[in-house]
Amino acid sequence: MLNKHGGDIYRKDIIYDFSANINPLGMPENVKNALTNSIDMWDKYPDPYCRELTRKLSEEVGISPENIICGNGAADLIYRIIYSFNPRNAVICTPSFSEYEKALNEVGSKIITYNLREENDFIFEEKIFDILNKNVDILILASPNNPTGKIISPEILERICRKCSENNIIFLCDECFMDFVKESGKFTARNFLNENIIILKAFTKIYSMAGLRLGYAIFGDSEKAGSVMNAGQFWSVSMPAQIAGIAALEEDDYVKNTLEIIEKERNFLQNEFMKLNINFYSSDANFILLKCNLPLDDLILKEKILIRNCGNFKGLNHHFFRIAVRSHEENTVLISTLRRILNG
Amino acid sequence: MLNKHGGDIYRKDIIYDFSANINPLGMPENVKNALTNSIDMWDKYPDPYCRELTRKLSEEVGISPENIICGNGAADLIYRIIYSFNPRNAVICTPSFSEYEKALNEVGSKIITYNLREENDFIFEEKIFDILNKNVDILILASPNNPTGKIISPEILERICRKCSENNIIFLCDECFMDFVKESGKFTARNFLNENIIILKAFTKIYSMAGLRLGYAIFGDSEKAGSVMNAGQFWSVSMPAQIAGIAALEEDDYVKNTLEIIEKERNFLQNEFMKLNINFYSSDANFILLKCNLPLDDLILKEKILIRNCGNFKGLNHHFFRIAVRSHEENTVLISTLRRILNG
Repeated sequence: MLNKHGGDIYRKDIIYDFSANINPLGMPENVKNALTNSIDMWDKYPDPYCRELTRKLSEEVGISPENIICGNGAADLIYRIIYSFNPRNAVICTPSFSEYEKALNEVGSKIITYNLREENDFIFEEKIFDILNKNVDILILASPNNPTGKIISPEILERICRKCSENNIIFLCDECFMDFVKESGKFTARNFLNENIIILKAFTKIYSMAGLRLGYAIFGDSEKAGSVMNAGQFWSVSMPAQIAGIAALEEDDYVKNTLEIIEKERNFLQNEFMKLNINFYSSDANFILLKCNLPLDDLILKEKILIRNCGNFKGLNHHFFRIAVRSHEENTVLISTLRRILNG
Repeated sequence: MLNKHGGDIYRKDIIYDFSANINPLGMPENVKNALTNSIDMWDKYPDPYCRELTRKLSEEVGISPENIICGNGAADLIYRIIYSFNPRNAVICTPSFSEYEKALNEVGSKIITYNLREENDFIFEEKIFDILNKNVDILILASPNNPTGKIISPEILERICRKCSENNIIFLCDECFMDFVKESGKFTARNFLNENIIILKAFTKIYSMAGLRLGYAIFGDSEKAGSVMNAGQFWSVSMPAQIAGIAALEEDDYVKNTLEIIEKERNFLQNEFMKLNINFYSSDANFILLKCNLPLDDLILKEKILIRNCGNFKGLNHHFFRIAVRSHEENTVLISTLRRILNG
């Protein structure tokens, strides 16, 4: 039982977890209060249609409730979307979140990979257009991409959305980390929404509620939303997740404060990495990809700090590490520990 | 958005819910306390392998942890099992829980149905053996069956388990309501466990935590368990569900008290139904199937009581209704309301 993702704090004696990309502000207080006050209701079945939560999301994102489906974390929706459309030919990029490939393998899709190039800083390039054609059934990209932290530029994104519509390719755009991007309104695929686009979003990361499992998907086409709603079990979203999501959407300053802290702390970390001569790829998100010839993860684990070894990301190797942007206190501990390790 | 199952308390102004088969004792206090005391941890990802919960379950049921998989409710596991084995030919019975058929349809299985006969009180009969042969890939039965409340007799069950082993048929035995059966040790498929048997269990019903979503499956074969663990997302069981499950397994008297109350109240209800001349099928479980020519569900909904119309169960029609066994106070309200309705 080896956890192939980050965040496996259950195996080791960990004090600082930089392996999971979760908001360092922690779960909003009003979410905690809503949870505490609702425990007596959790004996009832949850609303299978997440009606109140979907209504609130609909107001938040300005899209009809029929075009929104909630899931047991964004990962649940990746599987339900792929089970539902059962794509024969899929395009994904490397390196990227491994669950896309795993879900596609479960339905036997043929997978074509678009390789982001290290020498070009892993940015999304025009090359992607060479492999998008009428034979492709689904394209799955993340913006910002995990673990590289790079967004797709609005120019490329607009062309991708258009080309997917023209070639009847479903475009699953994973924007689970978009809420950590400053001026995300410029970069979201919502600007180019058409009938073939599905945007994946998570409460998990931005509201620091990974343990509760809550994600949602925005569909350009309500019929596609309906077919994903029907894929899989009826009561996939628990009552605590629904209640936490509803309370989270009532927060105003939390996301704004998060953006400020993430930008400040990402700059702090990137500056310190430069001083330490650690190679990194400048990030648009709340995590940073590093490259280092030392076994950084093993060395730093001795100090009870967990970072993400990216050796199991296709297109990377064990010299790459992903580090979450945490609070200033935690980041300072990370940097001083790295300094100690690197200076022997 | 019509809830095809029971328990949809979100659409109507309901005071008494007899449509969902949940323990009337409510969630155990120590489960509530464990939840309240752990909210601060729910920002972390849950343990994807549910290691502590599985270890406790392993002690409870006397089966190795490698043979146990936890899920986001038992319904999650139905889908993961079917996605994982992708059966071409499946046998299910009617009437039964509709999610088996829905999940089988999603993978395109050919479904053969074994029809329980009303004239024989819906009990499991020898006829089932006529359709179990080498062409069958999976057999799915529930004991006690939902909505009929009938267990499979140990004699028939033993022969089913043996025949499935001989013909290499996976036998998914849904025992989600077995914890409400007196002397359940006599009736569980665990007595006849072999490499082809999977037993499905839920915390949802017996511990009254439907809102939390927690179920598990016991596999005769640990390799089959591993393949189901790999089907679907990585973090399917939320942290509140895991914490609640661990606390629930520490309860001693709760299940014993539940069994006493359910037996007493089921007898009370069945006696009252006789007095009211309502046809019912005597039940082994915590719910009772009724037959009545009046639109009982509509009539009683006017009194803010929800019961389950069984018109959408294959093999039944809208003259059948399922009623959960609740607390004596609630059951008394149900009976007096029914009496008023039936006597005009």
